[in-house]
Amino acid sequence: MSKYWSPLAASLVPYVPGEQPKNKKFIKLNTNENPYPPSPKALEAIREAANGDLRLYPDPTCDALIRKIADYYGVRPEQVFVGNGSDEVLAFSFAAFFNPAEPILFPDVTYSFYKVYAEFFGLKAELIPLNERFEVPFEQFERQNGGIVLPNPNAPTAILAPLDAFRGLLARNPDHVVLIDEAYIDFGGESAVKLVHEYPNALVVQTLSKSRSLAGMRVGFAVGSEELIEGLNRVKNSFNSYTLDRPALAAAIASFEDEAYFRQTVERVMLTREAVTDKLRQMGFHAADSGANFVFITHPKVAAKKLLDSLREQGILVRYFNQPRISNHLRVTIGTDEEMDAFIAALQTILAAEGC
Amino acid sequence: MSKYWSPLAASLVPYVPGEQPKNKKFIKLNTNENPYPPSPKALEAIREAANGDLRLYPDPTCDALIRKIADYYGVRPEQVFVGNGSDEVLAFSFAAFFNPAEPILFPDVTYSFYKVYAEFFGLKAELIPLNERFEVPFEQFERQNGGIVLPNPNAPTAILAPLDAFRGLLARNPDHVVLIDEAYIDFGGESAVKLVHEYPNALVVQTLSKSRSLAGMRVGFAVGSEELIEGLNRVKNSFNSYTLDRPALAAAIASFEDEAYFRQTVERVMLTREAVTDKLRQMGFHAADSGANFVFITHPKVAAKKLLDSLREQGILVRYFNQPRISNHLRVTIGTDEEMDAFIAALQTILAAEGC
Repeated sequence: MSKYWSPLAASLVPYVPGEQPKNKKFIKLNTNENPYPPSPKALEAIREAANGDLRLYPDPTCDALIRKIADYYGVRPEQVFVGNGSDEVLAFSFAAFFNPAEPILFPDVTYSFYKVYAEFFGLKAELIPLNERFEVPFEQFERQNGGIVLPNPNAPTAILAPLDAFRGLLARNPDHVVLIDEAYIDFGGESAVKLVHEYPNALVVQTLSKSRSLAGMRVGFAVGSEELIEGLNRVKNSFNSYTLDRPALAAAIASFEDEAYFRQTVERVMLTREAVTDKLRQMGFHAADSGANFVFITHPKVAAKKLLDSLREQGILVRYFNQPRISNHLRVTIGTDEEMDAFIAALQTILAAEGC
Repeated sequence: MSKYWSPLAASLVPYVPGEQPKNKKFIKLNTNENPYPPSPKALEAIREAANGDLRLYPDPTCDALIRKIADYYGVRPEQVFVGNGSDEVLAFSFAAFFNPAEPILFPDVTYSFYKVYAEFFGLKAELIPLNERFEVPFEQFERQNGGIVLPNPNAPTAILAPLDAFRGLLARNPDHVVLIDEAYIDFGGESAVKLVHEYPNALVVQTLSKSRSLAGMRVGFAVGSEELIEGLNRVKNSFNSYTLDRPALAAAIASFEDEAYFRQTVERVMLTREAVTDKLRQMGFHAADSGANFVFITHPKVAAKKLLDSLREQGILVRYFNQPRISNHLRVTIGTDEEMDAFIAALQTILAAEGC
């Protein structure tokens, strides 16, 4: 605590990102990164952007990337907003659409940054408990609110909800924004982007960090009605006019231009996910069907914290959340087949040592 | 206006950045970009960063860059914060150190984003008028305040204040942060970074966009006491954990490693600035001595708006602010000698047509 901190800064409980080890000795299954590199076209675009034009500011309106995303999803450019990772897009959204007078709703078990954003912008949050199977209880969101935030698939549960459930929610909340965080939607889910044509209150947020292997470039985006996108631009231009640098813009455009590579890597991750899920279940783990690039697992006999520590000793990082309801679960990113073989082998060693 | 906007979003008056033309036909003297490319080492670092590791998040703590900046300025790594351009660092600073209960002070004529940040974070701003020579009246800042924001050199006036004036201000405001925005300090000024050893309330903000020719990469930083840097990190980690992408981190590190190139380009800009200032004065313009990479000029007979429009017709962009006190001034970035020759020639044509 410092006398120089504002009351806001003093009150914050910041988000804690997953560990980014400084050396490479670990198998990293802890931050939901894609095990495959970005499209070679994206890498080439970054190299091409490394020229004297970097002395110039990037386009603050990000026109070229916005037009690319609009084309890709069949919406108008005025319906697309891009930001410095989906985290920034989410932060701007909390500022743009929610207000302190009414509670915003999100699940009790979900991306832990939502609560942090709510505190940062002085918003009341009402946490809606997931049901006992960790599914989103959509009917529980039918209550007075100032906005709803729902990831699909949810994290860290990995559970995908059907698009029709969102249709109902959007129709019953015509006066408030329903933010659908689709960070992981490309791994087999159906995007709600198509709903923005029907519902002016639907804001769909995605990232290039997961399915497009560009976590290191920080690009996220939102698709919604023009009035929502205008609201986001108002906030952005009151905070930071130039949020995406030139190589990031170039890489993102190139990624959307390489559909074949995108499809191929996403499918490989999904195939590995199915195989790993089967093996984990055979070993006694509970794992719900995953719609993401990670699985969320618990074992009836060995505590998650014990597994976490033992895996780390064997050079494998996974994510553990010391939170109510999920403190006996692990979130495990889907890596390459080789990485997952090593993960499964390590688990077998640990379980054997525990007498399972 | 949309019913989905928060009261905050509805109330904002966003910042308007200088024009970034989509084609290259213009001589761009409107956004204070460096006319010389970034260090070749920075470009090479970006190319090297364009590899498969981009699938991984960047280091959220930006350790390597922070250590490089700390070494460069002779401070501890705990005294350095980096962000996505100095605009983001400034925005985080307004959130971290100022509070709605007390007015923050900054000049009436200064970087127009300060007022926007104040509104965004619900802060009261008290504008202190520059004196009639557009100098910062330091004695006028000796009043009750919740923090002070002062650029040095000031923008768009280009006028540099002596470091001793900041010493006095820091000493007389021990309970509040004095933020010194040194976006342009490398063009001949003496940095206040050395003051952070004496004054725990000094926060010095700089950018790599101007003197290091990296506007296209979005890197800024702050140097201050450990408690101030911790405050910034609290805010950052409540907003966006990964603000700098991997190529930006690599480019910034490489830039600080190429001191010779940095010195050379800065000196070229300063030499051109002195020559241009002389020529402008010979043509009847008033131009205060500039400590930045731009000059701030006014002509006794031809209106600034007229000059702006006529220059644009001749393919030259400069910056005009339709604001009280400075609506008859132009801010003109220092380009290459060739660009400035074209600028001077265009002005001569315009003045001749006006009978001057």
